Parts: sequence; structure tokens; C-alpha cells
Amino acid sequence: MMVLESSGLGIKFNVLGNRGDRVCNFARCYDNSHYRKFVDDSTLVTYEFEQGNEDAMLLAQDEGKLVPEYENVWMKIERDREKEYLRSHGFPVARFVVVDGGEEALRAARDEFNWKAVIKRARGGYDGKGQFYILSEKHGEDLKKIEGKLVVEEFIDFDYESSIILSRGKEGISCYPVSFNFNREGILIYNYGKIKDSGEREVASSLSSSLDYQGTMGVEFFVGEGRVIINEFSPRVHNSGHYTLNFSATSQFENHIRAISSLPLGSTETMPYFGMVNILGKSKVNSSLLKEGNVFLYGKESTSPRRKVGHVNVSGNSVEDVKKRIERIMEQLYSNDLSFL
Amino acid sequence: MMVLESSGLGIKFNVLGNRGDRVCNFARCYDNSHYRKFVDDSTLVTYEFEQGNEDAMLLAQDEGKLVPEYENVWMKIERDREKEYLRSHGFPVARFVVVDGGEEALRAARDEFNWKAVIKRARGGYDGKGQFYILSEKHGEDLKKIEGKLVVEEFIDFDYESSIILSRGKEGISCYPVSFNFNREGILIYNYGKIKDSGEREVASSLSSSLDYQGTMGVEFFVGEGRVIINEFSPRVHNSGHYTLNFSATSQFENHIRAISSLPLGSTETMPYFGMVNILGKSKVNSSLLKEGNVFLYGKESTSPRRKVGHVNVSGNSVEDVKKRIERIMEQLYSNDLSFL
Repeated sequence: MMVLESSGLGIKFNVLGNRGDRVCNFARCYDNSHYRKFVDDSTLVTYEFEQGNEDAMLLAQDEGKLVPEYENVWMKIERDREKEYLRSHGFPVARFVVVDGGEEALRAARDEFNWKAVIKRARGGYDGKGQFYILSEKHGEDLKKIEGKLVVEEFIDFDYESSIILSRGKEGISCYPVSFNFNREGILIYNYGKIKDSGEREVASSLSSSLDYQGTMGVEFFVGEGRVIINEFSPRVHNSGHYTLNFSATSQFENHIRAISSLPLGSTETMPYFGMVNILGKSKVNSSLLKEGNVFLYGKESTSPRRKVGHVNVSGNSVEDVKKRIERIMEQLYSNDLSFL
Repeated sequence: MMVLESSGLGIKFNVLGNRGDRVCNFARCYDNSHYRKFVDDSTLVTYEFEQGNEDAMLLAQDEGKLVPEYENVWMKIERDREKEYLRSHGFPVARFVVVDGGEEALRAARDEFNWKAVIKRARGGYDGKGQFYILSEKHGEDLKKIEGKLVVEEFIDFDYESSIILSRGKEGISCYPVSFNFNREGILIYNYGKIKDSGEREVASSLSSSLDYQGTMGVEFFVGEGRVIINEFSPRVHNSGHYTLNFSATSQFENHIRAISSLPLGSTETMPYFGMVNILGKSKVNSSLLKEGNVFLYGKESTSPRRKVGHVNVSGNSVEDVKKRIERIMEQLYSNDLSFL
């Protein structure tokens, strides 16, 4: 999407680790084992996914080519690093402790959080994997045998989840509107907006400045009692910003490329009512889906029912109108049944 | 642009006659001499330019694959065919006569139009080529030697030029907003909107229905005394609709592909204030241009100062704001001097 969306800027792209993808038709693709050549051949290196080729990232960082900088990736490798950064810099986060292994985690859930806690693996968590909710003494017996570093967090009884996408360039920060996010089993199913800003814009902007961040980032929040708590941030373009492809003057992808290239940011003006539904685990969709919105199929093989293989962007005359379209799409795609997750 | 903008729809593209272009990196490209194979290999054939490979169009039409149909192209080959169609179907057009050669044209200019006429070659006119304004008895002496079919039109003393883009699919017509067009020497320099609809929407919709048209089309108008006269229509995506790439939910390109594929049309919801400036004859542009809007460079070699090699899309808080940006871009690109045209 970064390559496609920046196709008019006259930038040449190299892509690492994407041999089979459609992007290789219009960018030079490198096998992961050739990451040195990839970094050598590129003047700037960025990533669409912080769990990318770490050797390449470290080499690019060494050569001063990695944008956003490796510190952002480093923080995402182990969840406690991110949490610690946020807490120590005064950003609103859930109370947490870092422990070693399941037994210690359960003890913390009891002693620190009165059995209202979420236990998360420090490493490897993505799309809801490695997260366990402890909401009573009875939960979690089988977690005792988990080894390794865990983060035990206060369970936040939030009203809803939201996110905001922003791009930070050399000359400032441009924010997209706040969206409501519907997640299930740790996966974003759909989002829509714009919704009321409960502080997301200020907190996210302040975080990006604190990190001296360059690029597009997404910040996810829990919102309750009129205030926001950061769930996590993503140092990259974000799934909850895919609506910008159709409904914003400049997409999050183009603004990422502009920001990392030290080019002026493009306008983030966005249509007032927008939404997005992820297409999970389908090998094809019915063309009637095109009635509801703008369909993007990524050309991926579907390897699991949870795999994001595309999305549908929807607009409407009001947030309610967008929500109705999202319901129809959910019915079409999943018969409103998410139990496959 | 059609290929790029439809990249998420899962359609495979073949492209004829574009060997050197970037599009060949992500579509199968065919040399013009292989047009038979191109048509054979394709389930549907469309065109971005009515002066495309006529053999291919005729073959595709014979095989029932050409959309929009060849009648639309046929009308554009000789200007009088289009004019005649419009007049005979009751659409508002300038008064005209068809003559043979320059002497007859000048006689018509005198007898029919009292020396207020435009003489246009029936064939080969594009971007203002082959058009001659006769505004007094003194003009046109050197036109006498022109041979071939000519259309002599009443000179319209219009207030301004406008256009509208629409897509017509199996289930109806979707219009984009009306734009103000600034042309010089027959070339669109910039356009902006949305402006008041003086009848463009109704006339263009009615024309597309009259033609039983399938696809995206652009219709250009002269507007004066509160009414519209059709200047010409284009049976294809149109330069004055390039703003839809950034400011409409679905671009004119994607809607063309949807319409010809008998897929439902996408939303034409558009930001309220938008504009576009063509980049003519530059081999490169300054990155400061990115401050003003969304830059598209087509990756073409610039072979003439009049050649369209890219465009800049601009939005703003009001039409006035968009016009100010356009002025700044005109200054940057051309130092406000269009004498090179």
C-alpha cells in the first residue's frame, strides 16, 4: 500500500521478504537472506510491521537509514519495554507489573489486582495471541506452567476502544480523526468514525513528540469515564487507518512515505463519516460487497480463518449510516458469527 | 490509473501499446502489433483515450468485448459526428455547419455567423490543435488553403467553462460534482470545485442514457447566461476528474472499471472543496510542491512543453482557499507565464 499510494511521487521502492506478493511486480523484491544488499541498495529503510526482518532493521539503523528509528521497534519486541516507556514518560497506561512465569503472574493478579487482570506474554503477542484474562480466582490455573517474562496488567473496565492515526514529519504533526474500534479475540474486526475526541489526539501527538517519531503511527486506546488510557502504539501504518485510502485527501501510507522522506505532509482532511471492515480468512468475496463500499483484496493466500486478506472501506451520510453498512457487510462476510476467531 | 486504482478488486489487467510505461510492471503489456492476442487474452476491452489502437477497438467490438461501445469512439473520430448526434438528440450545442475546405469555412463564418465563429478540423483535433478563431473579417485569410472536412461553429461568448464526470453502470448513474475549468490554447491547465450546477448534471446524465453508455465519461460545457452548452464529451476517464483520486470515496478510474465490469458503482462522495493543476512539460518538480497538495508524476518522458506529465491535486477549507493554492502552484510551476503553450 505504501508503494501503490506513493506511486505518483517518483520514488523507487525496494521490498524485502515479499517474494510472492503482487508488490514485486512494481518494486524490486529481495529475499530475506539478501537483506544486506537490500539495505545497501536503499537510501531509506522503513517497515510496515515491527516484527519484520530484525537483521535488516539493525543494519539499516547502523547505517542511519532506518526511519522510524529502531528504538520504536525495540520497545515493541517486549511488551514491558513499551509499557515502561509510557509509564516513565507520564502517559496514561494501565497499572502493570512485570513478572517471571505463570505462578508469579497469578500471584500478582491476586495481590496487585484483586483478580481483575490481564496476563500478557512480553514477547510475540500479536493480534490477541498470548493474552489471558483473569477475572476471578477460578481463572488461570492452567497458566501456572507458562514460562518467561509476563506483563500483568490491571483489567480496564473501559466503555469502548478507539484509535487515532497520525503522521509526524519534519515540520509537525498531522492527525486523522478518532475512530471507534471493534476488536474480537484481539483482532480488529471493524472501525468507524469520526467519534468524539476524548483526548486521543493530544496524547498521541505528545507521545510522537516524546519519541521524536518520524512517520505514520497508530495509537490504540481504552476509553472510559471520559478519559483515555493507551492500550498500545504501533510505530507504523495501522489497520485502523485503512479508511484513509478512500476517505482522506492523503492516505496514511502516502503520509508515512512523505514523513520518512522528510517531505512535507499531505492534507489529512477526511470525509466526516467513514468506516472499515476487515476481510478475514476468505479466499474470495461476492461482488455484491462492492455495493457497500470500496473493496481491497491483498492478493494473499488465506492460510487461516483469522488472516487479514483484505478490507472494505465504507462511507455514509452519518455515523449511523456507516454503522448500518458495516452491519450489512458483517452479515455478508461472517453471517454475523465471529465464533471462527 | 485504472489499473492502480482497481488493484484491490482482484482483476487482472492487460495493457496494449504501452511498452515503456510503469504500468507494464504490474499488468501484462502488449505491443500494438499484437493487438489480436491482446483482445483474445482479454474478457473486456476498454480505453483511456479514444484515439487508441483502432484495429484493437474494432476487433474487440466485433467480439462483444469493447466497453464503452465503438459508437462512442466513432463519434469522436470526426467532430461533426459528435455534434450531429448531440444536435439531433436535442442536446444543447453551439450552432454549426459542416463544410469542405477553408474557403467554404470562411464563407460560412461570414454568412452564417457574421464573423463570430470557430473553425475546427473534423479529424485529429485534440488539446486545441486544429482550431481557429474567426472574430472579424480580417482573421482567417491563411485558412483558405486548409483542405478536408471542417466544422464551423458559432463563437460562444460564454462566462466560463465547466465539466462534470459521471459513471454509468448497469444500475444507474453516479455523478461527481461540477468543476470550473481553466483552459488555455485548448489544454486544461487547472480546475476546481465544486461550483454551482447550472444544468451540467442533468444534461450529462441524459446524454449518457441516450448513448446507453457504460463506464466513466466527462462532459465539458460552456456556461453563460445561466445555461449550459455542451462543448464536447469524452467517452472515458477525463483529465478534469483527476481530483477524484484524492478527494472522492471512489475515483473516476475505479468507477470506470466497476461500470464496464457490470459491478456496482462506488460512492462518488467528494470533499466539498477540491482542485487540480496539470504539470505540463516538466521533467521534474520541486518537492516543495508537496506542501500544496498531492502530486502525481506519470513517469513519462517530457517530449514537449505542452505534454501532460503529471498533476497536483489540492483541497482546502473553501473554494477561495483552493484557488489560492492553485495560484501558488501556478507560480511554482510556470511563474504564472503560460506563453510556452
